[in-house]
Amino acid sequence: MLVPYGPPPRASAIGWRLPPFYCPIPDAVHPRRDALEKQAVAWLDATGIFRDATDRAWSIATHSTDFSCRMIPHGRDEPLLLFIEWNHWAFALDDIWHDTGAADVNTAHIVDLNARISRCLEAPGSAMLGDSPFDAALEDLAARTRAVATPVQLRRVAEGMRDWLFGASWQVSNIERGVMPTLSDYVALRPSINGTRFSLAWSEIANGFEVPATELASAPVQALTEAAGFVVSCDNDLFSYAKEDDHETTDQNIVNVLAHHNGTSHEQALTEALATRDRAMTLFLNLRDRIARDAGPDLRRYLEALGHYIAGCIRWMNEAPRYASPRNRYDLPVPGATYGITWRDTPSDPATGPLPIPSAAWWWDQLDALAHTPRNHRTSDLHHEPSPRRAPAEEPSAGGAGTAVERSAAEV
Amino acid sequence: MLVPYGPPPRASAIGWRLPPFYCPIPDAVHPRRDALEKQAVAWLDATGIFRDATDRAWSIATHSTDFSCRMIPHGRDEPLLLFIEWNHWAFALDDIWHDTGAADVNTAHIVDLNARISRCLEAPGSAMLGDSPFDAALEDLAARTRAVATPVQLRRVAEGMRDWLFGASWQVSNIERGVMPTLSDYVALRPSINGTRFSLAWSEIANGFEVPATELASAPVQALTEAAGFVVSCDNDLFSYAKEDDHETTDQNIVNVLAHHNGTSHEQALTEALATRDRAMTLFLNLRDRIARDAGPDLRRYLEALGHYIAGCIRWMNEAPRYASPRNRYDLPVPGATYGITWRDTPSDPATGPLPIPSAAWWWDQLDALAHTPRNHRTSDLHHEPSPRRAPAEEPSAGGAGTAVERSAAEV
Repeated sequence: MLVPYGPPPRASAIGWRLPPFYCPIPDAVHPRRDALEKQAVAWLDATGIFRDATDRAWSIATHSTDFSCRMIPHGRDEPLLLFIEWNHWAFALDDIWHDTGAADVNTAHIVDLNARISRCLEAPGSAMLGDSPFDAALEDLAARTRAVATPVQLRRVAEGMRDWLFGASWQVSNIERGVMPTLSDYVALRPSINGTRFSLAWSEIANGFEVPATELASAPVQALTEAAGFVVSCDNDLFSYAKEDDHETTDQNIVNVLAHHNGTSHEQALTEALATRDRAMTLFLNLRDRIARDAGPDLRRYLEALGHYIAGCIRWMNEAPRYASPRNRYDLPVPGATYGITWRDTPSDPATGPLPIPSAAWWWDQLDALAHTPRNHRTSDLHHEPSPRRAPAEEPSAGGAGTAVERSAAEV
Repeated sequence: MLVPYGPPPRASAIGWRLPPFYCPIPDAVHPRRDALEKQAVAWLDATGIFRDATDRAWSIATHSTDFSCRMIPHGRDEPLLLFIEWNHWAFALDDIWHDTGAADVNTAHIVDLNARISRCLEAPGSAMLGDSPFDAALEDLAARTRAVATPVQLRRVAEGMRDWLFGASWQVSNIERGVMPTLSDYVALRPSINGTRFSLAWSEIANGFEVPATELASAPVQALTEAAGFVVSCDNDLFSYAKEDDHETTDQNIVNVLAHHNGTSHEQALTEALATRDRAMTLFLNLRDRIARDAGPDLRRYLEALGHYIAGCIRWMNEAPRYASPRNRYDLPVPGATYGITWRDTPSDPATGPLPIPSAAWWWDQLDALAHTPRNHRTSDLHHEPSPRRAPAEEPSAGGAGTAVERSAAEV
């Protein structure tokens, strides 16, 4: 439901009043959000990428600044501004090329475009792009990213970009082939489509840390990263459902995937989507707490960033006109538009075992693996003794004291 | 020229007698090559991936064991065997899907296939493949790879695989779009098509080392890696030229790229290709020596691996029936077939400055950047004082004492 602007022009198959969100993770937002937005818009105007005032309004309506400032609430201004500008650029790319839902999408063309984008960042001076304002903006972003990031951070943001484009290519290949992915295939690729690793790499850059490669590459941290990306993606699927319901092809989102393969109504599929998403959230919380016990200081900051990613995205999308007053229903974004979401303290599915999804089951295996790993008694002053393990139903809820990770991270 | 079997059935546009190779890097081969090949073939037979004896013969004719044993001449047997088996599998994938040159290639299909392959390695149990012997072989390789690699090594081999598939997707997208890439675009993507990073990740696994992320991600090491991949790719383009000259579409190789865009004969394009390749080799040698001065022990092993990659691939392809008695001219691979190549001591183009190729120019920038970096006086006993900088013309030639890197690496 859009408030306070009354019902939007056309119903959404999953309803405007989204079900309550389960997210027992504290949120935060960068204190200089407003000033950063002004700088970002000035950059956008200088690039000349907008065809007209309407395009400009819809770019601002992505609330890229709010997203970035919730993802990285304690970041340094310069790299955070750069991340904001990247997000404006990436939304434009999605809207123009990747996620139009047009039936005549050509994967071969997208693959070539994506290769050029990746190499623009990786190979300075490669000049594989054209000379449009859009291309020039990317060159500018790439050059400034190379200047601001350490080599490891740059490598991770480049791999994160490739991962995002890898997901986007798969998405368009499904459209071209007329395929609605299975739930398991969707879970396997959806975090990539959402640009999960790209955003997390920016958290490292803007916060000025580097998770040691050994910790970041560990199976538990990889699984946790995917789980976080999946939860955010499910939330994105709900907030963007209406926005994409006029596409020529049926949008690939968790609700449509379930409705298509189970032959159920959108209402039933929504219920099942929430149960799936909430069980992934429970896994995320449990696995994150377990990883935090033996985590070094930079990994703890990464675990905190995953929380900001999940909690921040819900709040960002709730109030971004891109989602709350979608372009397929409004000529111009509606200032102050919001879904007016509500919260719940417990998951809609209380089960804690693995989801019956082959591509996700290994996330839960990491809990078992860590349970059999001898405790690494770190002596870092950044490490705090965890509370005794609680049953999921006893996890602190939204607005509560936060998880062990959040509490200790706040003290870092 | 194939010796001692006389001229092959049909001429090659660039001739069977390939021009002499410039490669002043010592070569080596694993002492247990023959035993490893027996084990690899036994695994192949057990997988049931061959339709018939002819398929089997051509898979063995890839000489994947010889390639792997030259790439990693000092590796441990178990992971080296795994790499050999991966290479057999990858050649089959290339021949069946990626590099057929068929005009009706469908990028959307390849993108989906590649996503499933990547996720098979990354997400245990994701079961995104079918149940053919070819799929089961990949599951087996993926599971054993996860078991044998450290988390960082696994991440690198997974990223290496993605990089290879990224290149393969781009290659098929060019075919589908009817595009012969420009030289600069080709240089930017060709190392990926060749699977450069995948092979190098296996060198780390089989040799049991991990280059620190900070060193591996540095711009000079990234540029050096690309330069090595490009040199190997050019050599591969020459050895595989005849093998692919009956494709429905003109093969994307360095000779055809140059002939197409410069409107020159194949003979002229071959000369230019060699000049381009040799200048990249000179850059490789100079940049590798410069990086070695401040390299830690694991980076030194990586620099050594790059040399094995270049020197090994030439010798491997020279005698692999896959190339020397190509399938488009012979019903069965010819045992003992060889190109009978020759060597030269100096580059065909003596220039040491940057190639006039936008996507490659930054490789030379790294030499300048390092020249302005204060010397890091390492005190590791693995570090050897380099000889005074020599002019390129004075670099040791093939069969000589090797570069500073090779000499000190041999002492590690």
